[in-house]
Amino acid sequence: MGNTFGKMFAVTTWGESHGDAVGVVIDGCPPKIKLDESDIQSELDRRRPAQSKITTQRKEQDKVQIISGVFEGRTLGTPIMIVVWNQDARSKDYNHMKDIFRPSHADYTYQMKYGVRNWKGGGRSSARETVGRVASGAIAKLILRQQYSVEIIGYVKQIADMVSELEPEEVESSNIESNIVRCPDQKLADEMISKIEEARKNGDSLGGVVETIVKGMPVGIGEPVFDKLDADLAKGILSIPACRGFEIGSGFSSVTMTGSSHNDEFHIKNSVVRTKTNFSGGVQGGISNGENIILRAAFKPTGTIVKEQQTVDIYGNEVAFSARGRHDPCVLPRAVPIVESMTALVILDHILRQRGQVGSVMKNNNSKA
Amino acid sequence: MGNTFGKMFAVTTWGESHGDAVGVVIDGCPPKIKLDESDIQSELDRRRPAQSKITTQRKEQDKVQIISGVFEGRTLGTPIMIVVWNQDARSKDYNHMKDIFRPSHADYTYQMKYGVRNWKGGGRSSARETVGRVASGAIAKLILRQQYSVEIIGYVKQIADMVSELEPEEVESSNIESNIVRCPDQKLADEMISKIEEARKNGDSLGGVVETIVKGMPVGIGEPVFDKLDADLAKGILSIPACRGFEIGSGFSSVTMTGSSHNDEFHIKNSVVRTKTNFSGGVQGGISNGENIILRAAFKPTGTIVKEQQTVDIYGNEVAFSARGRHDPCVLPRAVPIVESMTALVILDHILRQRGQVGSVMKNNNSKA
Amino acid sequence: MGNTFGKMFAVTTWGESHGDAVGVVIDGCPPKIKLDESDIQSELDRRRPAQSKITTQRKEQDKVQIISGVFEGRTLGTPIMIVVWNQDARSKDYNHMKDIFRPSHADYTYQMKYGVRNWKGGGRSSARETVGRVASGAIAKLILRQQYSVEIIGYVKQIADMVSELEPEEVESSNIESNIVRCPDQKLADEMISKIEEARKNGDSLGGVVETIVKGMPVGIGEPVFDKLDADLAKGILSIPACRGFEIGSGFSSVTMTGSSHNDEFHIKNSVVRTKTNFSGGVQGGISNGENIILRAAFKPTGTIVKEQQTVDIYGNEVAFSARGRHDPCVLPRAVPIVESMTALVILDHILRQRGQVGSVMKNNNSKA
Amino acid sequence: MGNTFGKMFAVTTWGESHGDAVGVVIDGCPPKIKLDESDIQSELDRRRPAQSKITTQRKEQDKVQIISGVFEGRTLGTPIMIVVWNQDARSKDYNHMKDIFRPSHADYTYQMKYGVRNWKGGGRSSARETVGRVASGAIAKLILRQQYSVEIIGYVKQIADMVSELEPEEVESSNIESNIVRCPDQKLADEMISKIEEARKNGDSLGGVVETIVKGMPVGIGEPVFDKLDADLAKGILSIPACRGFEIGSGFSSVTMTGSSHNDEFHIKNSVVRTKTNFSGGVQGGISNGENIILRAAFKPTGTIVKEQQTVDIYGNEVAFSARGRHDPCVLPRAVPIVESMTALVILDHILRQRGQVGSVMKNNNSKA
Repeated sequence: MGNTFGKMFAVTTWGESHGDAVGVVIDGCPPKIKLDESDIQSELDRRRPAQSKITTQRKEQDKVQIISGVFEGRTLGTPIMIVVWNQDARSKDYNHMKDIFRPSHADYTYQMKYGVRNWKGGGRSSARETVGRVASGAIAKLILRQQYSVEIIGYVKQIADMVSELEPEEVESSNIESNIVRCPDQKLADEMISKIEEARKNGDSLGGVVETIVKGMPVGIGEPVFDKLDADLAKGILSIPACRGFEIGSGFSSVTMTGSSHNDEFHIKNSVVRTKTNFSGGVQGGISNGENIILRAAFKPTGTIVKEQQTVDIYGNEVAFSARGRHDPCVLPRAVPIVESMTALVILDHILRQRGQVGSVMKNNNSKA
Repeated sequence: MGNTFGKMFAVTTWGESHGDAVGVVIDGCPPKIKLDESDIQSELDRRRPAQSKITTQRKEQDKVQIISGVFEGRTLGTPIMIVVWNQDARSKDYNHMKDIFRPSHADYTYQMKYGVRNWKGGGRSSARETVGRVASGAIAKLILRQQYSVEIIGYVKQIADMVSELEPEEVESSNIESNIVRCPDQKLADEMISKIEEARKNGDSLGGVVETIVKGMPVGIGEPVFDKLDADLAKGILSIPACRGFEIGSGFSSVTMTGSSHNDEFHIKNSVVRTKTNFSGGVQGGISNGENIILRAAFKPTGTIVKEQQTVDIYGNEVAFSARGRHDPCVLPRAVPIVESMTALVILDHILRQRGQVGSVMKNNNSKA
Repeated sequence: MGNTFGKMFAVTTWGESHGDAVGVVIDGCPPKIKLDESDIQSELDRRRPAQSKITTQRKEQDKVQIISGVFEGRTLGTPIMIVVWNQDARSKDYNHMKDIFRPSHADYTYQMKYGVRNWKGGGRSSARETVGRVASGAIAKLILRQQYSVEIIGYVKQIADMVSELEPEEVESSNIESNIVRCPDQKLADEMISKIEEARKNGDSLGGVVETIVKGMPVGIGEPVFDKLDADLAKGILSIPACRGFEIGSGFSSVTMTGSSHNDEFHIKNSVVRTKTNFSGGVQGGISNGENIILRAAFKPTGTIVKEQQTVDIYGNEVAFSARGRHDPCVLPRAVPIVESMTALVILDHILRQRGQVGSVMKNNNSKA
Repeated sequence: MGNTFGKMFAVTTWGESHGDAVGVVIDGCPPKIKLDESDIQSELDRRRPAQSKITTQRKEQDKVQIISGVFEGRTLGTPIMIVVWNQDARSKDYNHMKDIFRPSHADYTYQMKYGVRNWKGGGRSSARETVGRVASGAIAKLILRQQYSVEIIGYVKQIADMVSELEPEEVESSNIESNIVRCPDQKLADEMISKIEEARKNGDSLGGVVETIVKGMPVGIGEPVFDKLDADLAKGILSIPACRGFEIGSGFSSVTMTGSSHNDEFHIKNSVVRTKTNFSGGVQGGISNGENIILRAAFKPTGTIVKEQQTVDIYGNEVAFSARGRHDPCVLPRAVPIVESMTALVILDHILRQRGQVGSVMKNNNSKA
């Protein structure tokens, strides 16, 4: 069951990069939610290849089709099956790597695990699988927004050594989609784009950090002791291809602080219990406290590069290898909607669990006058 | 089911800090494993309070009792129930915090989530809950060691701004337990111990980083696409109290590298497919590749400090608060066996899953002549 | 995870018949439920051995202890651990069967499955394991009664060929506990008791049928397509030791009816949609329709008998065997609270799931004026 | 997650009767299994509508398409997605029942549960959903046959009051598919067919019993204490539309036997531990003992009938109703492959679990010389 995520709002993705299609089944979606393919399409378009000059040029419209679970424009409460047909799978581009284990890809590990693999375009290990995550995440985001006023905003905080100094609370949603790298720091964005293009010309690739802020988070969401909200976020986000690290709130920077400077003191603000600072990143003891959730995900530089590398083939020969298939010189711009989606899936799942066990959910009232 | 971890080797912890006892039920343990209470006790002793001058002085022997699932010295394959009775729960120490939400603790969030909480010593949110993790982790480690020659070595890499420069491969197991802070860099260890004592004297606390290396890892362990080995490790480790960040292999430092420098090229070494470097930290595409697994966990400075802080009580009054209960000025030394335990639980669970789906597990043969 | 039942209200039982104790961990219990050990004890007393002359004479007080999850008389929402210590485990009674596979017991299958078994009193396969079911079922029944006005009434309908003709709706709760065989048909009860005593004297055993009626069932409980309410009830009840069959509503008798006579026509009664008949047993398409749930469980005659039987020992020798340990000549009287408990666990679990996915539960209003 | 079945071999079905398609995702299938669409098609053809004069005449080719998880003719170990497009969904046939709650259908309960329903042809509650069960069951059967020599044979034992007296062991596979009602008792089969035709002419419907025998069952399969093999079989089979009862081995008939006559004595036969009788139906203590598994499932008469019935519409009016859509006058012939499929899904899932926990599976050697 490694391909299912969530206990109440459970999504199961399926499909390989160069198979017929990729998609997702969502089981546990609340009924009577107004849902249209366009609600999903808009998020898929943010993940889509060939959306700009700094992404892979594979031509996929990623046209979403809802096959089941929605009737007369509303969810039925029964499984929603969503499919996106693969259209521009140039498998012949991959013939040269049929017998090769690409460095820092999953070719070797899949072969060792299963004794077989779909070598076309990475098969199941391709980031193309994330279509299903973004499609289901779009539905989760819609429900969170409509029913709980939760807003999830992801953006590129860092590419290589270019780090945006914007505080999460300063980020304007409109400044993210206004540039192709999805960095709300407009000046830095141009620099990032140039560096990504340069990397691509050099046959190389770059990494970076996606930061995400969740506003309007209900209080009391997350379950002790293993299914802590931050633990499930960590899992969801580390499961995204190329992700290598996760932190919440102060994260790794907390280790050089003292308790007295790091603790978030409580006070009363507008009659609501609030923290003065938010080093906790909105989660204490694994449960949301109503402050903004702040998390960061580290993405390594894309494994697929044109520069020649040494590797090994399936016969045990050492060989030289250069990638030819189309690929992203930097996954960050397209990773943003994926991180948002995983965040949404975790939060909605936990809200439904809270509703189940406790019977109700405390909406966020931090902004009350 | 937030208190159960693992799908095949499933552990369920229970108990509150100042209740009668804490413990764990393990369901799915392979049968016929020789198991003795002393196998578990030795690990619990590494987690035990009052083990040194830099930990909390709560006097708990943490004497382990196996109540079920073991017969004539061998596991039965049926649930193993392990209990540790609480002995030195001075609940009156906590009377002053009955009505208080301690800053950066779970008092507020538990109250908001459930509408009720055990306020004695943090109740269920106390790190005392990790007794069950370490007890079950001890069994997982034993099975991994005996049946798969897997060795899991955790240690303190950093306290505050004191960072050991030792490479994971250089760490000697014997150098970790030889000092009370569990840092294998002996000179730095003394410095760390002093700084922790100093923090305690100041009524303050420190954070740090635990690094863990897993040697002898079988190849092919971990499941696409959500239950990736690193994703499940991230969840397991973020679920430890006070953990705020996780990274695997190059982690956050990967983001400033280029693909050509970061990719782990394959070659043949002693007739085995190996990577020349290990920026992947032993996991590619969510599946182990046989190289050492390297991971790091960031722990914030302990929330409980004697220094006075501002906070709010359950009646909505702003109040000043100073902790009085016994507590750790730095959780790192005691976090080491907990991180190891979560790592062991994840790896064993995935090995059993591999055995189930594929029918066999490829042992590691990297060290073969 | 074969020892955990339920998705939201998840119970994990542990313990062997002649081990130190048996018990259960309940994860997912709603918080703030007033709960006392006496609430559980009263149900355990109905399951207790030596409660009458027609049950086993093993002397167990089955004194319940709540170890965690309840604080100041209310549930915390975190795991409830309940233990019952074994007191009268005369393991020496079982020495003679250490090497024997008792006919129609689990000795052989446990040995084959695990390669090891606790041969004392059946170990994990003993019906003593059901202590944990009844303890957790008592909590489920309490919540169902208090929050949803659901009443679950089980009773013995049949022992051997003695069948009560009472319709479920005619059964008075008070008439069940008034006799030791728990058959509401008082005249038949005496006959049943005599026949059970006779069987015991003959060194033999009897089987029977437990029928259960659930009144006040909320509408809309149960999930398509696999976790149908009746499917989960079937699983829960078949998992009780000695149970060999399950039916809901008309059950096996439906097969000789025609659709036109079997269909439950709808009509309006007291402004509520009701069915005129209830061949469906309160469940249609796997979901409750608000009518009484009616189910029946078949229990085989107890496997343990004093009469000599032929069997095989663990060395492969054919041997003669006569049971000596104390045992029930008929499990039915003690099976009643167990069936009720499994029924309660299934229904409460599904109510919490409904609350989670849909957000609310439609209480039953069939009795409205 | 009510639409997922199985823990290791997990199938998730999706789709509505009159939606675009129905299908299934299988997660956890062992890799490297040779698999072809024709392996699945042959089983789907046994479930197909319009296969004979005594089934519904809805014209569906039920042409199977494997969309993912199979590569170059072998399973990849990653999710297998299978789709069957709906072709002959004459939704207009159902316009008259848009506002009607059909008696003994799920119209009312779905509406109450979700507040919305797809009223076309029963939507998700239609038996058309079982396409996904039979497709995934076909794969399970193939693996069981090839890797474990397990054979699962279902057949109609009873229609209305016509009961075949054949013992399960006497049933020849070839005699089942040789007639359209799938009763191996050839003379009785003709009578059954006539009675079903007669019921159809009368606008009425019939019920019956499917019996299933599993030969070559490995020993030691099934998990205490809740996930007993018979408990999971009961759940799987009760989850089939129209099923109302389940029994294993002697089932309900055991209740009138005594322990001394019902116990299955062990002896040695051809050097193998065997039982002399098989009242246990191949399962003891929830675990297989290597004898043939024998189970029976009761199916009520089809709810859909042409005869006029009284019912209620969604506005609360009492109305008369006659079904017009095409439907089966008796579901039994088509239920046979569905029961077999659920049986196969349960057994394979448990075999993989055994492989996972214990490391190996004991094949059946009852037939050894």
